[in-house]
Amino acid sequence: MTQQMNVGLLGLGTVGTGVLEIIEQHQDKLAHQIGARVEVQKILVSTLDKDRGEHIDRAKLTDRVEDILTDDSIDVIVEVMGGIEEARNYIHKALEHGKHVVTANKDVMALYGSELLQLANEKKCDLFYEASVAGGIPILRTIVEGLASDRITKIMGIVNGTTNYILTQMSKEGRIYEEVLKEAQALGYAEADPTSDVEGLDAARKIAILGTLGFSMRLDLDDVSVQGISNVTSQDLAYGDQLGYTMKLVGIANRDGDKVEVSVQPTLVPHSHPLASVDDEFNAVYVYGEAVGETMFYGPGAGKLPTATAVVSDLVEVLKNKRLGVNGNSAVIPQFEKLLKTDDEIRSKYFLRIHAKDIPGTFAILTALFHEHHISLEKILQVPLNEGKLAEIIVVTHEVTKLDYAAVIDRLNEEDVVVEIKSSYRAEGDN
Amino acid sequence: MTQQMNVGLLGLGTVGTGVLEIIEQHQDKLAHQIGARVEVQKILVSTLDKDRGEHIDRAKLTDRVEDILTDDSIDVIVEVMGGIEEARNYIHKALEHGKHVVTANKDVMALYGSELLQLANEKKCDLFYEASVAGGIPILRTIVEGLASDRITKIMGIVNGTTNYILTQMSKEGRIYEEVLKEAQALGYAEADPTSDVEGLDAARKIAILGTLGFSMRLDLDDVSVQGISNVTSQDLAYGDQLGYTMKLVGIANRDGDKVEVSVQPTLVPHSHPLASVDDEFNAVYVYGEAVGETMFYGPGAGKLPTATAVVSDLVEVLKNKRLGVNGNSAVIPQFEKLLKTDDEIRSKYFLRIHAKDIPGTFAILTALFHEHHISLEKILQVPLNEGKLAEIIVVTHEVTKLDYAAVIDRLNEEDVVVEIKSSYRAEGDN
Repeated sequence: MTQQMNVGLLGLGTVGTGVLEIIEQHQDKLAHQIGARVEVQKILVSTLDKDRGEHIDRAKLTDRVEDILTDDSIDVIVEVMGGIEEARNYIHKALEHGKHVVTANKDVMALYGSELLQLANEKKCDLFYEASVAGGIPILRTIVEGLASDRITKIMGIVNGTTNYILTQMSKEGRIYEEVLKEAQALGYAEADPTSDVEGLDAARKIAILGTLGFSMRLDLDDVSVQGISNVTSQDLAYGDQLGYTMKLVGIANRDGDKVEVSVQPTLVPHSHPLASVDDEFNAVYVYGEAVGETMFYGPGAGKLPTATAVVSDLVEVLKNKRLGVNGNSAVIPQFEKLLKTDDEIRSKYFLRIHAKDIPGTFAILTALFHEHHISLEKILQVPLNEGKLAEIIVVTHEVTKLDYAAVIDRLNEEDVVVEIKSSYRAEGDN
Repeated sequence: MTQQMNVGLLGLGTVGTGVLEIIEQHQDKLAHQIGARVEVQKILVSTLDKDRGEHIDRAKLTDRVEDILTDDSIDVIVEVMGGIEEARNYIHKALEHGKHVVTANKDVMALYGSELLQLANEKKCDLFYEASVAGGIPILRTIVEGLASDRITKIMGIVNGTTNYILTQMSKEGRIYEEVLKEAQALGYAEADPTSDVEGLDAARKIAILGTLGFSMRLDLDDVSVQGISNVTSQDLAYGDQLGYTMKLVGIANRDGDKVEVSVQPTLVPHSHPLASVDDEFNAVYVYGEAVGETMFYGPGAGKLPTATAVVSDLVEVLKNKRLGVNGNSAVIPQFEKLLKTDDEIRSKYFLRIHAKDIPGTFAILTALFHEHHISLEKILQVPLNEGKLAEIIVVTHEVTKLDYAAVIDRLNEEDVVVEIKSSYRAEGDN
């Protein structure tokens, strides 16, 4: 047990500090698993003279990435600096130098994952990124290893804690979106500019990563159809609840045969679905495999220690592989050609809420329209509004194609009895 | 890719057939992962001339275990025959012959796991048993690998599908225990002799295995305090529901400092707890780690393909290790000395339902008794019964020691105003 393995850490923010702490506090446990001591040898920071407290060995700090990339004693680079272009550049260079990489960077992996994994493969290097999706849940490893002899056909993920917190508050307390968002910002759950979270972009990056792994098919961010939660109203949630659904921002990747669909949108899931009870800032990833059936993995999606723990788990794998001389075998290069479903192949249920004139024959006109577009209805709720002048009509359809649904929405918009289409959401079945 | 790795299969029942099917149907995928072909070379069956359909190669069948154990071309033994003594004996012999073992046998692992893991360690053999706990959930691997740099302090598992199905039916449909059990037997969800399931023994075996791994401490079946569900009434469930709880049969392993407690009992978990919404025959294991916080893994607990999938996942690991020349490193030998909490150290909330005389002063007598035993109450519900002659009193305590709680129960039994203690259950907090 005299061997020592050296790590270069890029970034010493919240996660970087957590990684340092875990490595220091679990020295013996890590050595027991790996058969070698782990030492963080050098740390890249942007400002050398910042006060970082007593416990950081200042001699390890550097503001020149080359000090780390060209240090032959360093086996693995851990990238926890965040950002996109610079991080991508450093990961690229690290792999070029034959160093293994662990990253927590979902942005880089969603945008440049394929290119970097390809390079890692060529260089026989490991590139692990468990922490990039739902930090507290070992979901990537589970998909790759645990379900190794299965065929995954569906992944549904609540993979953004901020939006799940907002929707939970709106749904449980009947509060309005703007108010909850402000509170979340005050509490530090949401960024000052919340766009990436509330418009679904963060979740889109993660479902692209999950879909790529689960289906072994290169899925880019551009392949993900994205809709955020900023237009969701408490009324939508209340009506959804009445019809047996809970609203969640769900990243969905599903496949039929060789073709896949990847999307993120506010989705109504039945109360009985395991995702329905994932509340507050928690994340969960639901995976359907042909052999295993339904499984779900639940945990914190972010946070210093969950994310740092995922990073250290990856680091342990890389170091074990290094000792075994098998690095680079685990870099999973997509095997299948990308085949995206077209709108006439994407099937789903929908929740639709419209305001219509409350006159005789309105509902007959609407049902005729649905029928014309091959859409049958599973649930219908009608409520009088404005002293009977308007009718609030909520329907949940059976499964229809995205194409047919879009067509019926166009027709409803033209239809005279329809005053306004208030909202429209995807809805999921019982599994 | 010309190398071939040979497997000896012990047992060709439901799971064995599933293992065969998965290996045959995923030949390419397995070869891609392992770098070698996997072939089931020999299969131990009890009756050679039974009709098994066209797809089984009869030349592979044998009724003599020695044919398999002494075959030098066989690398790994997969034990899916069930039973206890014979299976233990064969696993023992296989390890003695230097063969790696994958088993789905929770009984053998709960009773003889320590001895067999010790032997595997000596022989530098792998002994994997993912399928022995919650077949469809890769929970053992997750505990060992995913949470490698964490310290687990609590494991709570719904690890028996039969009892979870029964409790779900009782709770959601208000049906009585005997009726649901009969139905479950008719549907094949419960055995003709349901004792092992409904009395909590099956769950006890699994929580012993989970606790042993999670705490790295040898926990035997005898260390588990066990209570089954056969006395649970729909009334208990209804009152629990009213107070915000769902009843589940929960295996609990927790540790404070160096001391642990392992138990299985019907437990009231708050509606907001992730375990509360695990319904029907599904299993889930909730793990609390100091770094990661709350995580939960949900999936099918049994079934041909989920169990077979877990077996094949283990098999893949063993074969990869074999190719890497690192078998035997993963056999996890408990590191810590067993230290069980005594009754004055085991702390929990309790739900208590009693019938008392509805006379002035009754409640004052009861509260004085609780107070005397250092028990404070979190929730109280009182309902008049029998036209006011009796009072049904339900309380949920704050956390108390098992010792104090047992003492107050003794005193309540002697107390004149108490007509009957109807039921008493453990209750859990919000996490």
